Amino acid sequence: MPAITVSRPDSAVASHQPAFLFDLDGTLVDSVYQHVVAWREALEEVGINLPVWTIHRRIGMSGGLFVNALARELETDLDRETLARLPALHADAYMRHFDSVRPLPGATRLLTSLTEIGVPWAIATSGQQHYAELAVELLGLPPATPLVTRDQVRYAKPDPDLFITAAERIGAAVANSIVVGDSVWDLLAARRAPALGIGLLSGGYGREELIYAGAFRVYDDPLDLLAHLDEVAVRRPL
Amino acid sequence: MPAITVSRPDSAVASHQPAFLFDLDGTLVDSVYQHVVAWREALEEVGINLPVWTIHRRIGMSGGLFVNALARELETDLDRETLARLPALHADAYMRHFDSVRPLPGATRLLTSLTEIGVPWAIATSGQQHYAELAVELLGLPPATPLVTRDQVRYAKPDPDLFITAAERIGAAVANSIVVGDSVWDLLAARRAPALGIGLLSGGYGREELIYAGAFRVYDDPLDLLAHLDEVAVRRPL
Repeated sequence: MPAITVSRPDSAVASHQPAFLFDLDGTLVDSVYQHVVAWREALEEVGINLPVWTIHRRIGMSGGLFVNALARELETDLDRETLARLPALHADAYMRHFDSVRPLPGATRLLTSLTEIGVPWAIATSGQQHYAELAVELLGLPPATPLVTRDQVRYAKPDPDLFITAAERIGAAVANSIVVGDSVWDLLAARRAPALGIGLLSGGYGREELIYAGAFRVYDDPLDLLAHLDEVAVRRPL
Repeated sequence: MPAITVSRPDSAVASHQPAFLFDLDGTLVDSVYQHVVAWREALEEVGINLPVWTIHRRIGMSGGLFVNALARELETDLDRETLARLPALHADAYMRHFDSVRPLPGATRLLTSLTEIGVPWAIATSGQQHYAELAVELLGLPPATPLVTRDQVRYAKPDPDLFITAAERIGAAVANSIVVGDSVWDLLAARRAPALGIGLLSGGYGREELIYAGAFRVYDDPLDLLAHLDEVAVRRPL
């Protein structure tokens, strides 16, 4: 019996490639702990003392949601003006700590490798454009990098808007996309998009927190994900 | 049939009370993130750039182990002199951040309540005596508080020496003691003592990380543990 040769045109293979939608803080840049410290300082400036771990677990969610949750949990009369000042106080404090922010291991290599093998990708962050652009620069990425920030959508994470918009921006179907994030807010947004979620430990969450939030796989950081791309539906040319 | 009255002398009841052995940083005081930042700064001063989450996951282990692990993982030639400088650099950096350290919710109330109901307790920390004493002062505890620090034992956590010594100090059987800690190093030390381990989320670990490391129960913080003392073998007088 003759051997059967299966051949498909390259374009068909390419269309099966998923797109990658990356969170930024804690996923590509090592900035979560600086954001935590910045929120602690901003809150202290308005007289609010919150245990630091409770701030950590909210990094990556919409700033509006963060402040709303705060007002409800503290059960104190925080006036609207005080709450309204918090985002700017946080931004100022974050800039004071920005000189210690570094790319996470393998971040730029991962993105470059995806481009090389024809996998489209974009970045989608609950952060403001200015701070996101600083991080993109830190990663050595060109200004034309597809980047969707908080001010470009109605609702930030855990709403799916950021990831849906990011997929549109690069002409990808969100349902054929893989969201990579370090927080449960990324993974909740991914499920709602709906897209497949992958967790990274580099934002300081525990592995099981990310799995229970819906992560299909959990890796240490971008370098670890790069080493395991074959596990997450990426077909690399031999 | 007459009702059967079971009576036991108070001393017998008291002897059934477990003793509590508390970790300090992340368990009674909200200082883990300050330690994380301090280690990052110390490492940067000697030219080492580590992702911050990997530092976070090592807080609470012996400083010697931390530095050994570092030397092995980095696979670079870190000379002994550089490694030897790290603990002092960390201590200096931690003091720069100490003014933002606060007691965790309910910490002092929990300790006071245990004393009131006749439950013996002590504090056992991988930290140095000077910094532990500052934290004890911050908690408003008397200088006579039973406190075992790194310099009083051969090996710090995850070796069980600190908890074994703390139990001896207050005349308790370590096997009838409950170790309360926020890190997997506390829980590993507890299993080796052996004592029963309880985890607190207030150091920023995930719940399941603490359960998998052997925590019998996991609470948010000291206040949450205080509200659930009846779940962890403490008998309170009605």
